[in-house]
Amino acid sequence: MLNAKHKIKAVILLSGGLDSTTTLAIAKSKKFECYSLSFDYGQKQESELQSAKNIAKIFITSEHRVVKISLSGISKSALTNDNIDVPKFSQSNKIPITYVPARNTIFLSYALAWSEVLNCQHIFIGVNELDYSGYPDCRKSYIKAFEIMANLATKQGIEGQKLTIHTPLIHLNKAQIIKKGLSLGIDYTLTTTCYQADKNGKACGICDACEYRKLGFKEAKVPDQTRYQT
Amino acid sequence: MLNAKHKIKAVILLSGGLDSTTTLAIAKSKKFECYSLSFDYGQKQESELQSAKNIAKIFITSEHRVVKISLSGISKSALTNDNIDVPKFSQSNKIPITYVPARNTIFLSYALAWSEVLNCQHIFIGVNELDYSGYPDCRKSYIKAFEIMANLATKQGIEGQKLTIHTPLIHLNKAQIIKKGLSLGIDYTLTTTCYQADKNGKACGICDACEYRKLGFKEAKVPDQTRYQT
Repeated sequence: MLNAKHKIKAVILLSGGLDSTTTLAIAKSKKFECYSLSFDYGQKQESELQSAKNIAKIFITSEHRVVKISLSGISKSALTNDNIDVPKFSQSNKIPITYVPARNTIFLSYALAWSEVLNCQHIFIGVNELDYSGYPDCRKSYIKAFEIMANLATKQGIEGQKLTIHTPLIHLNKAQIIKKGLSLGIDYTLTTTCYQADKNGKACGICDACEYRKLGFKEAKVPDQTRYQT
Repeated sequence: MLNAKHKIKAVILLSGGLDSTTTLAIAKSKKFECYSLSFDYGQKQESELQSAKNIAKIFITSEHRVVKISLSGISKSALTNDNIDVPKFSQSNKIPITYVPARNTIFLSYALAWSEVLNCQHIFIGVNELDYSGYPDCRKSYIKAFEIMANLATKQGIEGQKLTIHTPLIHLNKAQIIKKGLSLGIDYTLTTTCYQADKNGKACGICDACEYRKLGFKEAKVPDQTRYQT
């Protein structure tokens, strides 16, 4: 029998960046019992994994897991391939070279597996359709289609325990995300956003991710305390 | 410009079992250029990975990849957990303990990533709705939902290069699958079906997978040349 303090579980995809950290803070503010999940997929910004661990501790998630996955053999992206440089920011409508094929699909699939093992019907992911670099797997239509598929894929799904994928940032711009996070007490200096942060977590300041982050702080009229390499 | 001999690429999920081997043979018979993909996910039946490699060689796939994935931390199944025994065959309607949460979703997600890198719009998977042990992620409705999601997930999907997931076995029973495979020249002694085959590839003869295989050969009226442990 559940006691009055029983919380509803949620798996949170936590990269250690600004968006996923805000997503975790939102899930906590809604009183979910949070299980955070990160991926070591050979990304250049390894320091984001350390950020994720630190943030999971600060937000006291019930468990933090880092799943090591091998994308290098079957992927090509500036984020995972040492032979491709991360490009400077460019406001283009094209899908950039930092796009990792099917990344969110793979991440959500693992989250789905873990949520079923935890007997949990909630997954949180910090995608948004606005400042999103043009990645197809950050759109609401994609997330909705994944949710439909997920409910046909699992034992708990076909037994009527419907899974919901929460995207609390989906319609927010970066400035709104930052304001939301600050209202929830996030210290954003703990997060790593840069696609090629150095070992100390210092950001390059010139990639797409850095540029969107900078603009976000500017628009939110909040001092940007991110540590840059130069 | 494509020459007359240019073939259409396909990624084939190849476990090394009877179903996936038949699926590969069908894809080859339809003149696809095949890329085979196996997973080392800590399954007890490691010898199926060796079978998959051998079969990929025999069928001359353009490339055979084995992706090592870690399910043990976020999964519980008799197929991956040493503390849970693989049960004997029982004709039950319940989803059995051999069910690995979200397995096909994870496998198809990797296939999706690789297919995008290969610029390939076809994935083959040997699921079927009949002799399928009650796994939810072997049903046509699930596969269709994955396909819809996949076409929203990727760069090639949103650029109009539609991905198709082929399930040539979906409505066949085991006997029909065996007959089909034999007509395509498969030597089924090369395949490993058993959930707990030994290191030499010998089958236990008592798990669900063995039982369905045995019944298949019996119904197809074909000698069962599977090597059993006793």
